[in-house]
Amino acid sequence: MKKDKGGNKEVKGQEHSMSPDGRRFALPREDDYAAERERLDSFVLEKRREGYEIVVVVGLGFVGAVMAAVIADSVDKNTGMPGKFVIGMQRPSTRSYWKTPLINLGESPIKAEDPEVEELIRRTVLEKKTMIATYSNDALKFADVIVVDVQCDYIKEDLGKLRSGRVAMEALESSMRTIAENMRPEALVLIETTVAPGTTEQVALPIMKKAFAERGLKTEPLLAHSYERVMPGRHYVKSIRDFWRVCSGVDEVSKRRVKKFLSEVLNVEDFPLTVLDRPIESETAKIVENSFRASILAFMDEWTRFAERHGVDIAKVIAAIKVRPTHSNLMLPGPGIGGYCLPKDGGLGLWAHKNILKDSEDIFKITPLAIDINDTRGLHAADMIADAVKAMGKDIKGAKVLVAGASYREDVGDTRYSGSEVVARRLAHLGAKVYAHDPYVDHWWEFENQDTYPYPGHSLARFFENQEGLKDLKVQNDLPSALEKMDAVFFAVRHEPYLKLQPEDVVKWAGGPLAVIDGFAILADDDIRRFLEMGCEVAGLGRGHIGRIKQEIKLKGKKRS
Amino acid sequence: MKKDKGGNKEVKGQEHSMSPDGRRFALPREDDYAAERERLDSFVLEKRREGYEIVVVVGLGFVGAVMAAVIADSVDKNTGMPGKFVIGMQRPSTRSYWKTPLINLGESPIKAEDPEVEELIRRTVLEKKTMIATYSNDALKFADVIVVDVQCDYIKEDLGKLRSGRVAMEALESSMRTIAENMRPEALVLIETTVAPGTTEQVALPIMKKAFAERGLKTEPLLAHSYERVMPGRHYVKSIRDFWRVCSGVDEVSKRRVKKFLSEVLNVEDFPLTVLDRPIESETAKIVENSFRASILAFMDEWTRFAERHGVDIAKVIAAIKVRPTHSNLMLPGPGIGGYCLPKDGGLGLWAHKNILKDSEDIFKITPLAIDINDTRGLHAADMIADAVKAMGKDIKGAKVLVAGASYREDVGDTRYSGSEVVARRLAHLGAKVYAHDPYVDHWWEFENQDTYPYPGHSLARFFENQEGLKDLKVQNDLPSALEKMDAVFFAVRHEPYLKLQPEDVVKWAGGPLAVIDGFAILADDDIRRFLEMGCEVAGLGRGHIGRIKQEIKLKGKKRS
Repeated sequence: MKKDKGGNKEVKGQEHSMSPDGRRFALPREDDYAAERERLDSFVLEKRREGYEIVVVVGLGFVGAVMAAVIADSVDKNTGMPGKFVIGMQRPSTRSYWKTPLINLGESPIKAEDPEVEELIRRTVLEKKTMIATYSNDALKFADVIVVDVQCDYIKEDLGKLRSGRVAMEALESSMRTIAENMRPEALVLIETTVAPGTTEQVALPIMKKAFAERGLKTEPLLAHSYERVMPGRHYVKSIRDFWRVCSGVDEVSKRRVKKFLSEVLNVEDFPLTVLDRPIESETAKIVENSFRASILAFMDEWTRFAERHGVDIAKVIAAIKVRPTHSNLMLPGPGIGGYCLPKDGGLGLWAHKNILKDSEDIFKITPLAIDINDTRGLHAADMIADAVKAMGKDIKGAKVLVAGASYREDVGDTRYSGSEVVARRLAHLGAKVYAHDPYVDHWWEFENQDTYPYPGHSLARFFENQEGLKDLKVQNDLPSALEKMDAVFFAVRHEPYLKLQPEDVVKWAGGPLAVIDGFAILADDDIRRFLEMGCEVAGLGRGHIGRIKQEIKLKGKKRS
Repeated sequence: MKKDKGGNKEVKGQEHSMSPDGRRFALPREDDYAAERERLDSFVLEKRREGYEIVVVVGLGFVGAVMAAVIADSVDKNTGMPGKFVIGMQRPSTRSYWKTPLINLGESPIKAEDPEVEELIRRTVLEKKTMIATYSNDALKFADVIVVDVQCDYIKEDLGKLRSGRVAMEALESSMRTIAENMRPEALVLIETTVAPGTTEQVALPIMKKAFAERGLKTEPLLAHSYERVMPGRHYVKSIRDFWRVCSGVDEVSKRRVKKFLSEVLNVEDFPLTVLDRPIESETAKIVENSFRASILAFMDEWTRFAERHGVDIAKVIAAIKVRPTHSNLMLPGPGIGGYCLPKDGGLGLWAHKNILKDSEDIFKITPLAIDINDTRGLHAADMIADAVKAMGKDIKGAKVLVAGASYREDVGDTRYSGSEVVARRLAHLGAKVYAHDPYVDHWWEFENQDTYPYPGHSLARFFENQEGLKDLKVQNDLPSALEKMDAVFFAVRHEPYLKLQPEDVVKWAGGPLAVIDGFAILADDDIRRFLEMGCEVAGLGRGHIGRIKQEIKLKGKKRS
């Protein structure tokens, strides 16, 4: 078993790829490729005759799979007829191959809260027959447009130290090479991956030019960049199709082509397209907008600490401020800032500045600080849990702690870089036995099965010693049984079911009073009071008014006696 | 001539106070007080008979004067009749006394772009006769409600080092003492000043309790906090009256009273009031909301630098991002972040944490960093100006530079802590001769007359050596003559007239090509091109695409030749 630089395991001789729901798919062998080429040929020939444009989407991950289906579902705005035939392309690794046969069965390779995802893939593959998937690079030879949705990760080397990380460019570079070696010279290549600013013109374009030169082509590659703004949740498809887009191209023709293509497949009538002068402007816009969001979340960290220490309920303060339209995006950060983008995109910017744009002056102050704050906020939450457990007369060592909420965001099942993961790892480090509950998450891959976890090389595990308490962690969906015999429960995410909980039920399910720690302003003041009155210890991130409620209860008790 | 701690000059024997427009008012003498008391007595007696409530507003500055008039203009929501008689109170210092007689003449003591300010004061004083002003503390004896609008400044000891500063509490402390010594025990005192969190309960309340005890009063003082959210500009009055408010009180009665009072005088129907549990929550909310705004502005500093260095036009990037409702408050920072609040409020928070709330752990990261970035951004702008002057073949030493825009915000005439001031001081430090233009500013007090400048103790002058080039600085209102013979012009503020300028006019008025530096994305790409084609050097904060435009012009020139 060897690992490549990105941390992907390449297991020799293994011939199957397993989907998250446990189905095994035999990997294609050398002699399968000819048949696949024929299959593609016949599809493309038929579709071309019908006047379709051929679009290849490279990379069938969270964005690529849905973007592919959105393109396949689009209709010509004059005729109302479908006009794009999409071939989704995914290299046949043991980790990812299963996506290809799954799509060809009309099934979605990603689990989403948005029912439109499954419906869209089913419809385009099985009904409209405007989408297929393949493992073969041959697809590239047919494409009029190639959309690149391969990963470009930022690998952190330390916890809470963004600057020491690096961008993993290998996958993108090798994809660009493969594409340029196989594509028709007049095809448009559209990079949709979030990349380090400068990548399109200074990394991708030279690779393509070199490949074109080696092929003896005289023409310049047509290359564009446009970033997505997907948001996991119930409106996932809308966040791709019905949302504002930004794009640019390396020259005027590329710009014209990308503008035309996006206008054909997205709802640009209601969400107008912004065409910027150069790809670096489009690349930078993506980095700035996500760094901005990371920063406004990080900003609240110090003020939630302030609130905790000085009797202030930060939740009420934020609600008072948010009424101002200019301040409506002020947010409670919760125990950490997760998701795929916010923890990494600032890193892409810093790294690009130094490594692509060759600028040795460090001009960054807030962006790296913000991400470092966000990445380590869970440590403080874990310490607060330990204190609360202690206040209940127990030691965190050996205590059973239920982390309620494994995903990074309310009412979605996406666990990527969730704050809860840091909390759980720190709790284990402190000696706790950690349990997990989430109504939306079936598998917390970060803990349950490293082989199915999409980013094994980046596992946060490497930043923590003693992860023994996480050994058997399996996320549970039933809260009453998950709470059984717990010494503490940490509410980490504002999932709707948590907001509706009755304190009496929590204590009953746990079998008695326990430490209750509110990581995201989930408990109303009345909940806090009821927990306290049943003998629970209660604490919460930014909820400094809990001390006042304790005092009131004490005074009431004294008056009674 | 001696100075008090806050830096106010107390000139012995001087008996006049001069208004900004040059009128001199004799200061009241010892034996004027009895007559003033009689005047107040008769006013109050009459108004009480008519059923009016008496409201005293202490401090007639930017907020107090307008708040007083808003209260005086309010009507009983059942009867439609006026119900509040307001006495504005201002201590009779040479610096501030003039405000009192001015208001009694029905004139506004503050210059505002909002025509409603003058109208409101004229109407309430002369027509409705619901407002007078006085210098005498005796007013306090009549008040049902006392609104405190005295200054509470944050004094910085170094440039770009917020942490070394301190809060000037003296004025507020002495006001609270005077109020408690004179007020009726059942009156409500409402602190509207932005204060360091904890001030209401831990500073003001003890002072009042002590004074009450000395007066032999058994009752507890009624004390509340509610902060304003005024915004200089054309809707100044609306920003006080028709905007969401937050309040709290030290006990249940105080909370009830402040809720009642604000509901009677403000438009709480359209802008509901938030009542928080404790004054520290209301105090903290104000600090957090302004620190938030300071931080989102500071965030863009590093990305404007990034843009400058890597060919990106940050203005277009921001426009592309701002279409997202969640990112609509992303802003270009300009050459610095001024106004009275944003540069100081974070300092109040930090100082309170350590000095009022006695917390020795430094929990702040982003807030002080953001303010430090904002406070020093003008230095970079000045360096950019110097570079542009050099590119025109001149040295900044001895160069004539016009700073266009003295105010801190577009289309207002408020120069408090404007970014332009730092730019001008730094330019002088570099040896330039600095000139100024602003269509809305008659006097740039920070330079023109330290006696009329409201915050002399905090003048930024003390942070700069060699301010010779500012010696004769007088702000000009006529751009053509201001530009005459200039070597450079720096556009600092997005004033409407600047946005409409024609490059050809600028060059004509200057008498030839000059260095044109865009501090706030004022120049359109076409403007930049035209300036360059006339032989000007052009640079701009965050406008990295200027280099590309230069290239294009060069290429065009080559093609022609």
